[in-house]
Amino acid sequence: MTLSLQQIIDGIQPLNRMAVENARARTAQLVMPPRALGRLHAIGEQLCGIQATLRPQVRGKAVLVMAGDHGIVAEGISAFPQAVTGAMIQTFLAGGAGINAMARQVGAQVWVADMGIIPDLDAASLKNGSRLLVRKVGPGTANFACGPAMAPEQAYKAILTGFELASSLISKGVDLLGTGDMGIGNTTPAAAIGAVITGKSIADMVGPGTGIDDAGILRKREAIRRGIDLNRPDPHDGLDVLAKVGGFEIGGIAGTLLAGAYHRKPVVVDGYISTAGALIAHRLAPAAADFMFAGHCSEEPGHRHMLAHLKLLPILDLGMRLGEGTGAALAMSVIEAAIRVMTEVMTFAEAGVPDKA
Amino acid sequence: MTLSLQQIIDGIQPLNRMAVENARARTAQLVMPPRALGRLHAIGEQLCGIQATLRPQVRGKAVLVMAGDHGIVAEGISAFPQAVTGAMIQTFLAGGAGINAMARQVGAQVWVADMGIIPDLDAASLKNGSRLLVRKVGPGTANFACGPAMAPEQAYKAILTGFELASSLISKGVDLLGTGDMGIGNTTPAAAIGAVITGKSIADMVGPGTGIDDAGILRKREAIRRGIDLNRPDPHDGLDVLAKVGGFEIGGIAGTLLAGAYHRKPVVVDGYISTAGALIAHRLAPAAADFMFAGHCSEEPGHRHMLAHLKLLPILDLGMRLGEGTGAALAMSVIEAAIRVMTEVMTFAEAGVPDKA
Repeated sequence: MTLSLQQIIDGIQPLNRMAVENARARTAQLVMPPRALGRLHAIGEQLCGIQATLRPQVRGKAVLVMAGDHGIVAEGISAFPQAVTGAMIQTFLAGGAGINAMARQVGAQVWVADMGIIPDLDAASLKNGSRLLVRKVGPGTANFACGPAMAPEQAYKAILTGFELASSLISKGVDLLGTGDMGIGNTTPAAAIGAVITGKSIADMVGPGTGIDDAGILRKREAIRRGIDLNRPDPHDGLDVLAKVGGFEIGGIAGTLLAGAYHRKPVVVDGYISTAGALIAHRLAPAAADFMFAGHCSEEPGHRHMLAHLKLLPILDLGMRLGEGTGAALAMSVIEAAIRVMTEVMTFAEAGVPDKA
Repeated sequence: MTLSLQQIIDGIQPLNRMAVENARARTAQLVMPPRALGRLHAIGEQLCGIQATLRPQVRGKAVLVMAGDHGIVAEGISAFPQAVTGAMIQTFLAGGAGINAMARQVGAQVWVADMGIIPDLDAASLKNGSRLLVRKVGPGTANFACGPAMAPEQAYKAILTGFELASSLISKGVDLLGTGDMGIGNTTPAAAIGAVITGKSIADMVGPGTGIDDAGILRKREAIRRGIDLNRPDPHDGLDVLAKVGGFEIGGIAGTLLAGAYHRKPVVVDGYISTAGALIAHRLAPAAADFMFAGHCSEEPGHRHMLAHLKLLPILDLGMRLGEGTGAALAMSVIEAAIRVMTEVMTFAEAGVPDKA
């Protein structure tokens, strides 16, 4: 059965409050000073609220890397040529990229979805091609400095496709998902989404991306300014923002996050691009943020503003700015540690240790 | 053969510069924007310098938890009764404490050394007693507000014992060590060591520890002030500082860190207490800091000053303040990820991806 976006949104409910309260009560009894493991307690309690249990668990883990190309690269806003998008997908499948190293470290699978890159990759002929999910919404977006990035139906389709891909992984036993992205030029739509939804200035949201110089940053700001002035995305309408200044992979990420919330599975949001997807998902269904963890804080300066808007605290802050899902994957180890605190650490009474006088 | 402290110090050499340079050159070619994985590159390059190779590896991992009791608790400086030290050691052996959960998450062994707690635990009669290493330097330190915490020979013995215990683990195949501590009252000697060695004020160094109230913090500051005024530790003499205002477990941690440096193995420093041990080790052998990683930044406010003195950047910052080695263990996952970046990620040429124009 295929759900409509409205059915998905209507199916998203907030955390189970009783489970969160029970989890806090358990934390207070653990054989350590009150909340001495800091953020790990809050993470564990959120997981209890997501899974409505005092014993949350994670068996399967996966990073779902959404890929797309961007017409906006015609404005000279990226340090790398557009052909890199397709080439990197092949590197992901070959296991040689940053995300593969991070995912192996935490024992997560890597899946790659072609949400709309320009080249047609033939999954059957590629090494590990079965990990490539070809679901093209279009052959790259249009240049949003000259008109909408995509048609409204394409925005809808990108989100639903992301929802279905993530739901399929969840149905196969994945219960901790990470978001990831690949798309040369995609810090530009991400910055545009960030500016529109958070209300921060374009200057606040735009950074060097993969490493563009100061003149490039000015071009990037100008392209975003033109795109917003021309397309007038409605900040209160996540679908409209995605269609006017977004990207196919960003829609796929939004759909992934809606799937986590709908199926009550935690999803780790990666960096700048993924958080733009999170802004879209949150705008469509505010309670979806209850199911998100911010894997890390990116070096891309606007990321902090996006996270603040979503009230998400990043787990890691290691100066990373790669995307691909690397920050989401690496943070999975901390999330699993938080589960162990909740489920494996004894209480004072269980351990027979005298509590505070 | 038993080494003298001077022989250990003389045997500590800095990072292999050529290996670090080669590692940086490799990083620059990886299939990603320049240094896009941030701190992971610096961590990986440091590991290359430690092991003098482009392919660092970690097989065995262990946390060595040093335990000791403290005469200074007579001053009313701790929120918990002294008996908790011994009780927590039994919890570590039973596998029910925070450190056990973190160590299981990262696949590290937990070893506990009785460096000088008050009770005599009988390893043979305890569950997993073979993981308890009884090496008592004394039955708790003396109250350093009234005289030296220990005799100079005890300080020497504590450091040498830590060196030997860590060297023994290394000889059994452990090549990533984490430091840990247990000792009710031990934020007080740690703060004293921090104040003496970093030159920061006592007020800057003293925090709530396991959760003492404001009146307790004032007592703690006053006890440290009296201890420093009375004992006059020489800030340039690590052994003297340890003897006058330190603790047996802090000496053991300093010895652990000297062992890592001597045998050229990375050691992850845990939080506030462990970093006081690091200050002692660094004062004795400055190059020892080349082999240290700061696992996390503790909530205990003085920790930042200690880390700054050692020029160590913490890997995690999760509001933790438990000790036991929890922050060291959790950071091991990031360190292993950094190794994977160095050894598993392809270069642009290897991946066949077009580099920047």
